[in-house]
Amino acid sequence: MEKKLLKEQSAAELADLLQKTKSAYDAFQAKKLSLNMARGKPGPEQLAISLPLMNALPSDAEMISETGDDCRNYGVLTGISEAKKLFADILGAKPEEVFVGGNSSLELMFACLQIAYVKGIAGCTPWSRLDKVKFLCPVPGYDRHFALTEYFGVEMIPVPTDDNGPDMAMVKKYVENDETVKGIWCVPIYANPSGIVYSDETVRAFAALKPAAKDFRIFWDNAYCIHHLTDTPKQPLTINQACAEAGSEGMFYQFVSTSKVTFPGAGVAAMNTAKANLDELCKNLGIQTIGFDKLNQLRHVRYFGNADNMRAYMKKHAAILKPKFDIVLNTLEQEIAPLGIASWTKPEGGYFVSFNAPKGTAKRIVQLCKEGGVTLTGAGATYPYKNDPDDSNIRIAPTYPVCEELKQAMELFCICVRLAALEQLVK
Amino acid sequence: MEKKLLKEQSAAELADLLQKTKSAYDAFQAKKLSLNMARGKPGPEQLAISLPLMNALPSDAEMISETGDDCRNYGVLTGISEAKKLFADILGAKPEEVFVGGNSSLELMFACLQIAYVKGIAGCTPWSRLDKVKFLCPVPGYDRHFALTEYFGVEMIPVPTDDNGPDMAMVKKYVENDETVKGIWCVPIYANPSGIVYSDETVRAFAALKPAAKDFRIFWDNAYCIHHLTDTPKQPLTINQACAEAGSEGMFYQFVSTSKVTFPGAGVAAMNTAKANLDELCKNLGIQTIGFDKLNQLRHVRYFGNADNMRAYMKKHAAILKPKFDIVLNTLEQEIAPLGIASWTKPEGGYFVSFNAPKGTAKRIVQLCKEGGVTLTGAGATYPYKNDPDDSNIRIAPTYPVCEELKQAMELFCICVRLAALEQLVK
Repeated sequence: MEKKLLKEQSAAELADLLQKTKSAYDAFQAKKLSLNMARGKPGPEQLAISLPLMNALPSDAEMISETGDDCRNYGVLTGISEAKKLFADILGAKPEEVFVGGNSSLELMFACLQIAYVKGIAGCTPWSRLDKVKFLCPVPGYDRHFALTEYFGVEMIPVPTDDNGPDMAMVKKYVENDETVKGIWCVPIYANPSGIVYSDETVRAFAALKPAAKDFRIFWDNAYCIHHLTDTPKQPLTINQACAEAGSEGMFYQFVSTSKVTFPGAGVAAMNTAKANLDELCKNLGIQTIGFDKLNQLRHVRYFGNADNMRAYMKKHAAILKPKFDIVLNTLEQEIAPLGIASWTKPEGGYFVSFNAPKGTAKRIVQLCKEGGVTLTGAGATYPYKNDPDDSNIRIAPTYPVCEELKQAMELFCICVRLAALEQLVK
Repeated sequence: MEKKLLKEQSAAELADLLQKTKSAYDAFQAKKLSLNMARGKPGPEQLAISLPLMNALPSDAEMISETGDDCRNYGVLTGISEAKKLFADILGAKPEEVFVGGNSSLELMFACLQIAYVKGIAGCTPWSRLDKVKFLCPVPGYDRHFALTEYFGVEMIPVPTDDNGPDMAMVKKYVENDETVKGIWCVPIYANPSGIVYSDETVRAFAALKPAAKDFRIFWDNAYCIHHLTDTPKQPLTINQACAEAGSEGMFYQFVSTSKVTFPGAGVAAMNTAKANLDELCKNLGIQTIGFDKLNQLRHVRYFGNADNMRAYMKKHAAILKPKFDIVLNTLEQEIAPLGIASWTKPEGGYFVSFNAPKGTAKRIVQLCKEGGVTLTGAGATYPYKNDPDDSNIRIAPTYPVCEELKQAMELFCICVRLAALEQLVK
């Protein structure tokens, strides 16, 4: 395969390359692959790491929490004390400002939105009674975040991001001047899908915001806070510390879970916010449930013992994931970089690589991959309303397939990128 | 203590009895009891029954569901197939019409209301955009149900019940003529708090309703469907069968859980409704969660094996609970019946006894009990807005205390009932 910048190739060279790429694609189709890289799912090898968790709370274990609550029975809405401490330590938060829930942080985010929508928070009008509610959405971002705000009829405004995080000048302008702006979606560490880590300056700029709306909240989804791929992870400024320094403790809701630490379907999710926020949320959450699964909380606490053990545990995941990220990045480096047609991120943690294809080709690439046997995250999914104005961004999720399959999938992906780019150039 | 009808006693006799009752009350206060009978909580002896559940899904167990889904990973929003079958069998429903959720049926009820409120169901206007939404509330009923509808600003209309269930003439009139009536709360078997079982005629009358509102749903909370206290339980007509016969399959949402089978805080909840309803709910539920805890679902399925085993298992609970209900009923029979001042139910299952004190005394009785060291469910809690117009109904929840404590609590309760009644009579 030719490996020089496409823009330096002649029409004849490009036409020739297109034919060769088509042949390569046809050869792949003949293999009848069936691989799914659509979601950030841990693979079976990662799930096996946490099997001993299943024995961490046997029938003869003590089922009473350190505060004397029977974890088998009803109650304890905010979660057991020892689980609060564990997550507080992970987040650098105060245990009394932590709520420990069920198996889904998404569910907690939904609850926060729902309460603001139905009842209103901080003495403000419920969003259901407002003509207009807006959220800022750093792009590319997480499709399930966007689906949550779309559910509640919230208008979503894309905000560009660079290697330091969202465009904070734009964020500040919106948040401080438009009282219909009620929130912003953030994945501050190993962002979904770019993998970037917000710089300390960005975190401080968030903490320094003076929102026009009293019920403005930063939805700080710290889903990948300990999900490093390197042995020397960055130690970014926490939102807790930044807001404490700025005196804006009540401005954020922080979310975290063990979905990608133990089991995606049976982990423990938690949130962290100022005590007054938490009290208000709990008054409303207590209507919809008597309490989340405290036995699973206790099981996790017994299994890990403390936050340092949980941090160390993540090296087991990294050992499985790093080679997969290397396959993605090496294949792109080898097959796409020489052509000068695309860019991508090189994350040091998290679950994704963000790929920017030539403008107007993302949908075509995803379609070609699908017809070649590899399902990717839908093109546009990383934008609100699935609307990527450049039709360029594709989220690569390398964690689920085994390495051999991932190699094949990435080879196909690169062929599809070349094919789509050449289809544009050769008319 | 005198044991003849109060109404046949002279003023002097009543004054004397009041003094004696006051002395008895003072003697109880001196004991400084501290008992809580506020909620329908299983006691520690009941929780111990299910300890082997903790070993039912060890680390070397098969974690793949019968349909090939890894129960540890994300997905399978509607629950694993084997859990659907288990609950379907318990309810007499079709597995494909069952949704298996997390640890809380209340959470599923909330979700149903929330979806109708935010998005609307069956093509109808979301309740948030209507001026008025009403729910029928058979009384006495369950305070957490009323809290759910109150949360969404729904106007609650009390409907009287007798030994056959709610007043179906009144229900029919409202449901068929008022399109703002969107639902009704029902606990059809061992109702909370009366313990009554809806008659087959009542169930048929529900199935025969022709609602004015297309989005009217019967919220059929079958919380106590297998929670019998006798060896010869009634076999009431199921809502599934009745609605199938009447051609009104889409009219109900049915709820069930193992909260009072295994662990209140870590059981499995499920719902059952027509496939079209379920599909519509799932489209919306899929926004707020990727899926509930499938490992706990699988753990329960492995533990019970089948529905017959679960039914037989309930005899272990009955063996613990029956003596507690006997204490309540025997004490009332002995201490209150001869006075002719109150009535109460004699349930054959469930978690409660419903007590009707002399009009205008329920709040006073609950207060006296509290000051005597026994916390009861708040007076009025069994009515919407906590408003019992007669100030008469008290829910007795005998399951949590051990028998010795329950005896004391019931003695105190009877003293308080007498005291409050005599305070009214002796001016």
